[in-house]
Amino acid sequence: MRKILVIGIGAGDPDHLTVQAVKALNTVDVFFVLDKGEVKQELVDLRQSILDAHVTRQYRVLEGRDPERDRTASDYVGAVDDWRRRRADVCAELVSSLGPDEVGAFLVWGDPSLYDSTLPILEDLLARGMAFEYSVIPGITSVAALTAAHRVNLNRTGRPVQITTGRRLASGWPSDVDDVAVMLDAHCAFADVDPDVVVYWGAYLGMPDETLISGRVGDVADRIVATRAALRAEKGWIMDTYLLRRS
Amino acid sequence: MRKILVIGIGAGDPDHLTVQAVKALNTVDVFFVLDKGEVKQELVDLRQSILDAHVTRQYRVLEGRDPERDRTASDYVGAVDDWRRRRADVCAELVSSLGPDEVGAFLVWGDPSLYDSTLPILEDLLARGMAFEYSVIPGITSVAALTAAHRVNLNRTGRPVQITTGRRLASGWPSDVDDVAVMLDAHCAFADVDPDVVVYWGAYLGMPDETLISGRVGDVADRIVATRAALRAEKGWIMDTYLLRRS
Repeated sequence: MRKILVIGIGAGDPDHLTVQAVKALNTVDVFFVLDKGEVKQELVDLRQSILDAHVTRQYRVLEGRDPERDRTASDYVGAVDDWRRRRADVCAELVSSLGPDEVGAFLVWGDPSLYDSTLPILEDLLARGMAFEYSVIPGITSVAALTAAHRVNLNRTGRPVQITTGRRLASGWPSDVDDVAVMLDAHCAFADVDPDVVVYWGAYLGMPDETLISGRVGDVADRIVATRAALRAEKGWIMDTYLLRRS
Repeated sequence: MRKILVIGIGAGDPDHLTVQAVKALNTVDVFFVLDKGEVKQELVDLRQSILDAHVTRQYRVLEGRDPERDRTASDYVGAVDDWRRRRADVCAELVSSLGPDEVGAFLVWGDPSLYDSTLPILEDLLARGMAFEYSVIPGITSVAALTAAHRVNLNRTGRPVQITTGRRLASGWPSDVDDVAVMLDAHCAFADVDPDVVVYWGAYLGMPDETLISGRVGDVADRIVATRAALRAEKGWIMDTYLLRRS
């Protein structure tokens, strides 16, 4: 039976890989890679350096072209679903190329359970009648890398925390929660929350360019917005996340 | 300067340790251990087996007695704060025993940012005037171990997820969210939610006795309650967590 591994590789530091992930990497015959049209060469290199650092056996790399997503669509979920369907077509081709007893792997930044579409895509392929086993190796999330770098707890004693998107936060602070971790925010939604909220922001977490800013939103939001724009312009891409804490 | 490391050691599988954590363990002179009166010998042994598997240098283990917590108090946060203060006193003693250039470490199950009091305690010790540096090594959370074992996403496309406690869930389903991960639930609060909610439950995640049950709450809640009680009676302790998904 063909086997697929979905391996969380952490937020960016090659040392974020778990011992379990390193062992799993060393059972893989084929690594499936989906890169976007506008390739972030630095991320491609970083992923390769992770393989170089940890894999001691021979392997093949099979590349698929990640379909473009319509980021202007007003129907966000519909646009993502459509993109995911086309992405599943590409993945079906990749998985089909696997020999009968071979092991294939998708490498996922962070943890495969958080804002990643690999698991739903594999379920989709099984529903289409493809035959393979698969298992998931958990990874260090960018949220855990963020809180570790800032040395803060994600939640407060006995209190809940919500993990959400910039898009959601932009439509209002969520109910019933005072601690909110935000991912996928290209528009700096933190700048519009209550200025007394404390923000813990981090970009390129675990990477050599890791950049951290924290403080009252009223005091540091402008600095984060400017720093984020400068870093993004300099490097051509940015990965960042933040935690908001309301007293 | 004395240095303290707070190291996330994952949900129970020694292979959950990251390469970063393994490297950090091998810089430690003294491991600080706080055990409760009713020691879970199996957890003590598991932690020791993690050190045996990964540490190649000489080290000392210094044990403090974890103060009892008043679990009957009606003021939950107050009781936890009081317990944390007494716990900080014990930690102050442990840290004081460190030589001037030595490295001490606290090992934390899961990730140090999630429902753990080590970081606030260290901030408390600094506020008392103690002098040390400290840093945090992120770890695999029981939530990530749960979703990996069930091969499900924590959140749905573009949607938020809340991480909360059993105590909170028992007082009502949180607003603005349909996906809820629950920790610290000794009273099976999932049994009282809408029977059409889907539950993904796991106990002893990453350990040899890992036990998973999933399904509609209306179909599986009784089985989880019975399984949980039987496992707890058999082993004398249980660590479990679950994800609830409302359609």
